[in-house]
Amino acid sequence: DAINASGSTAAAGTITQSRTHTCGELRPELSGTPVVLHGWAHAVRNAGGVVFVLLRDRFGITQVTINDSCPEKTQKQAQAIRLEYCLEVRGTVQLRDENVINDDMETGRIEVLAHDVSILSRTKSLPFLIAEPTKQQINQGYAEATEETRLKFRYLELRRARLQRNLMIRHKVMLHVRQFLDALHFVEVETPVLTKATPEGARDYVVPSRVHSGRWYALPQSPQLYKQLLMISSMDRYFQITKCFRDEDLRQDRQPEFTQIDMEMSFVKRENVMSVAEELIRSTFKSVMDVQLPEAFPVLAYDEVMRRFGVDAPDLRFGMELVDLWDVESEFAPISSAKALADGAVKAFVVQSHASAATRKVLDGYTEFAKQYGLSGLLVGKVDESGALTGPLSKMADRVSPAQLVDRVRAAPGDLILCAAGRLSAVNAGLGRLRAKLGRDLDLISQAASPYAMCWVVDFPLFEYDEEAGRFNSVHHPFTSPVPEHVDSLQRGEKLAELKAAAYDLVCNGSEIGGGSIRIHDVQLQQRVFSALNINATEQQDKFGFLLDALRFGPPPHGGLAFGLDRLIMILTRSESIRDVIAFPKTASASDLMVGAPSVIEASQLEELHVQNVLSSPEM
Amino acid sequence: DAINASGSTAAAGTITQSRTHTCGELRPELSGTPVVLHGWAHAVRNAGGVVFVLLRDRFGITQVTINDSCPEKTQKQAQAIRLEYCLEVRGTVQLRDENVINDDMETGRIEVLAHDVSILSRTKSLPFLIAEPTKQQINQGYAEATEETRLKFRYLELRRARLQRNLMIRHKVMLHVRQFLDALHFVEVETPVLTKATPEGARDYVVPSRVHSGRWYALPQSPQLYKQLLMISSMDRYFQITKCFRDEDLRQDRQPEFTQIDMEMSFVKRENVMSVAEELIRSTFKSVMDVQLPEAFPVLAYDEVMRRFGVDAPDLRFGMELVDLWDVESEFAPISSAKALADGAVKAFVVQSHASAATRKVLDGYTEFAKQYGLSGLLVGKVDESGALTGPLSKMADRVSPAQLVDRVRAAPGDLILCAAGRLSAVNAGLGRLRAKLGRDLDLISQAASPYAMCWVVDFPLFEYDEEAGRFNSVHHPFTSPVPEHVDSLQRGEKLAELKAAAYDLVCNGSEIGGGSIRIHDVQLQQRVFSALNINATEQQDKFGFLLDALRFGPPPHGGLAFGLDRLIMILTRSESIRDVIAFPKTASASDLMVGAPSVIEASQLEELHVQNVLSSPEM
Repeated sequence: DAINASGSTAAAGTITQSRTHTCGELRPELSGTPVVLHGWAHAVRNAGGVVFVLLRDRFGITQVTINDSCPEKTQKQAQAIRLEYCLEVRGTVQLRDENVINDDMETGRIEVLAHDVSILSRTKSLPFLIAEPTKQQINQGYAEATEETRLKFRYLELRRARLQRNLMIRHKVMLHVRQFLDALHFVEVETPVLTKATPEGARDYVVPSRVHSGRWYALPQSPQLYKQLLMISSMDRYFQITKCFRDEDLRQDRQPEFTQIDMEMSFVKRENVMSVAEELIRSTFKSVMDVQLPEAFPVLAYDEVMRRFGVDAPDLRFGMELVDLWDVESEFAPISSAKALADGAVKAFVVQSHASAATRKVLDGYTEFAKQYGLSGLLVGKVDESGALTGPLSKMADRVSPAQLVDRVRAAPGDLILCAAGRLSAVNAGLGRLRAKLGRDLDLISQAASPYAMCWVVDFPLFEYDEEAGRFNSVHHPFTSPVPEHVDSLQRGEKLAELKAAAYDLVCNGSEIGGGSIRIHDVQLQQRVFSALNINATEQQDKFGFLLDALRFGPPPHGGLAFGLDRLIMILTRSESIRDVIAFPKTASASDLMVGAPSVIEASQLEELHVQNVLSSPEM
Repeated sequence: DAINASGSTAAAGTITQSRTHTCGELRPELSGTPVVLHGWAHAVRNAGGVVFVLLRDRFGITQVTINDSCPEKTQKQAQAIRLEYCLEVRGTVQLRDENVINDDMETGRIEVLAHDVSILSRTKSLPFLIAEPTKQQINQGYAEATEETRLKFRYLELRRARLQRNLMIRHKVMLHVRQFLDALHFVEVETPVLTKATPEGARDYVVPSRVHSGRWYALPQSPQLYKQLLMISSMDRYFQITKCFRDEDLRQDRQPEFTQIDMEMSFVKRENVMSVAEELIRSTFKSVMDVQLPEAFPVLAYDEVMRRFGVDAPDLRFGMELVDLWDVESEFAPISSAKALADGAVKAFVVQSHASAATRKVLDGYTEFAKQYGLSGLLVGKVDESGALTGPLSKMADRVSPAQLVDRVRAAPGDLILCAAGRLSAVNAGLGRLRAKLGRDLDLISQAASPYAMCWVVDFPLFEYDEEAGRFNSVHHPFTSPVPEHVDSLQRGEKLAELKAAAYDLVCNGSEIGGGSIRIHDVQLQQRVFSALNINATEQQDKFGFLLDALRFGPPPHGGLAFGLDRLIMILTRSESIRDVIAFPKTASASDLMVGAPSVIEASQLEELHVQNVLSSPEM
């Protein structure tokens, strides 16, 4: 590898620590070898005067045995060992007796007979056990510590094998991404953290300037404009794995600071960026997880994706696609109301063999779920064993026969049909998210051909009309280029709602893991977009003057993409919480419970920064 | 390499862009090959209807020729090309005529005869030329743009070859460091940017919390405590290349945000960390710059370094060591005053063959320089051709002979002697820094055996007494362990001023490029240090409670080190300014002139953050 190739660090492995081996590497071949191990007492068992210690470090667990053949001092010392004490063990590797070989442990065929055990440090009573409770234990009523406790003592939770593995995978992914992109002549360039507010749509975190009274830095929501400027600086291929910041109300899968794999390339078309990004992901899955992804990811148009799945990040691990029932004639009130809307829709999907499991209570749950997305309810149908349609949906079959309706959605006896009628956006969101939820809840996922279903989504709209504000917004960001065939229309300011963006999202298992676009490199076109977004000339100059300036100095055509690293690692490690892939995460209220941040700071410091707190209610 | 080893990206080099070659790679072997190039017009010359364009991209420069054998449309297009226009050129490689071969250019034996030239974007008139002026041009009065202009148009300055090379080297160093440490089982772990104030001594940048009114995050001055907590979490070997933040008044070589290569290891002694760090640096110099550093860097004790060089980061590329003249008897007033001090000193150094060049004006300059460091003046002596001592220093020879004094400092005819008497700290600082300055100014450096003189400095004091505040401060930081043989003395609270720290600095060419220590892992010892620093129990709990807590859960012995990446890259690229190794640096007043940060933000945003500006004078 790279290190051995340099030929200069042959001895580095042995010069770095006083241990001879880690707790993960001893094997029967080393029987008789004297060793020095360091680690923590993962388990301690005293069996009739013989003390067994499972010594754990980041690399594994090794059994240390102290019996009456050991020096008396060592036997005495062994009696003092408690859980999680930090130890140095000097001893000799020996084969275990046949009857105590444990092939579930990598070191399960040996043990270390200790000559000497030193207690490097002691441990007060633990707030929770390091060995993570199994699902079975939890089901049996084992009381796992609260997440609050685990975050407060995060350094102890990080001793758990699962979190250690997650951080290792994260490290390996970051290194692989860097090596991969370096080989393609991408250059990692660090962009500023103390910068100017960017227009990514979320709130900025801001920092008062001590030197410039009344002025503030913003922490970047992304390095978007800096990477475009790097293209203008002829950097050709840029990447960076970097922290980004958004002051949003946090959901389970968001953090105020998150990590992005950020890329940009010059002289490219959409396909070029997508090829590099796809190959990067394929190579990362292969290299880090030994997972072979398909040779080519499907590329789906936004319109098709919305039609078939109702959401723009479809989970392709299972079917249950939405069926459009718009043209099914019916006088049934919910249907006819929907048909009266300018943007009405009637769609349905079929849950196979789920009719009998879908009790009233279960269906009420589905309805409540769907209502969150603006639906007034669900029209439920069940196909009974004889093939007949029952339930409220059957009322829709007033102009066609129930059998025709059942056939139309391709339902079979025993299937459940979930139908929605209303505004298209509500029908898509409600059914689309219900489909995704049922895919997980009913474990359709485990039947998938591959655990990872990747696809590209392209041809997003460039703008969306905000009815409340009475103007257009960018669907991505205002630097996104339209597809080449729509440039003229944008230049003329025509058909804005119909323009497609040269943007692309990479979706895995129903989550967007990356997204990007070809950027605008024509200054007039960029101004055209700002105008379309109702950003007037003064505001354009104030916020984006430096970009507009830069676009006047020979900008190359360019485009790029950013991956959300946290999300990617969640997928690779099959973690359910983003907090499981970040060493020191924040809570949903953006607090660091371990160090106690944010915290009160001294008045003199605020004074120096030309700011003061404005407290609505007195606070300690 | 890593990419080819994965076997999956064989085609990635060709799928990424529509060019066939970069502007740096065409060679005579490719004569006759049709090519597509992208780049900028670095120079345009029109010679009797034949247009020559030097086309530049990040990879090099290639000459494009448009003559009367080219299509008419192309000839016409060529007339429109101006400096820095962004171009696509389609053409055929051909050998240059013998008489126009340019062996100073890597592509100087070929040219590309253009079939087609497309202008991808135009350029308004440039604020400065991309081709950096040579020293000769500057000496001839060529007006280089001001730094302010160059920072405002940083994306243009970044097109310059020197800055491109600096950023490439920075990228290669970062990648190499990561590969090196990965091979030694270090894990890169990202630590938070939104965190709690750390006690590094400088001012923090702070961020108001929207959710927790009146509370603030601090940006980290270093990940010090997080990396110690990672050791307690059994991470074993951690590293991170990360941004750190200090709100200090900036000098030429400081930036408000800077990058650190941060490392920490468990179960180590000082020598272990030093070995890894030294090998990391050696391997980086070899791999990135093909520079072979010595097999072992000298290790010097702090006391010796201060005695010989007056500063704790000695430049070992030249001699001119300080000579202690304390025991030379003299009644000369400056000497006898110094001797009367409790902490007096008399030291000198010799500048070889510099007596005649050291005019009154030159010597006044030296004196002014030395006075900055608290000296009242310099005692200057010159050794004339006959070996006699002249100048004020000769008055010191009232109890010994002038010849004895000359002999004592080992001066020879033609040498200049610079002597200082006063408080030890002023004598050391004044002479030490003057020595370093003269080493550069008199270009003693270029005579060095190696351009890089590395050394370790160890055995720093643990504490220094602050006379003004009447208490001890940490010389490094309060988590630094004393050397093992001084632990007992610290536990007893004895001889605090004499304790040595288990700390180490790596010095290159008179600059500290890295530093670290073995940390305290014993909670009582840590509390002992806090008490020695007059941090009372309440404050200990408030600021460092989480660390003291963590030290009660089996902390391993651990230690680490951090390198200043910016400084390291300055040394590797021989840059004189830190701004030459950072893509988007800030000015001395911490401004980003390109994007205009810091800037005024909206009142509504401040309100949401529960803060308001307190302006001493109205500001726009």
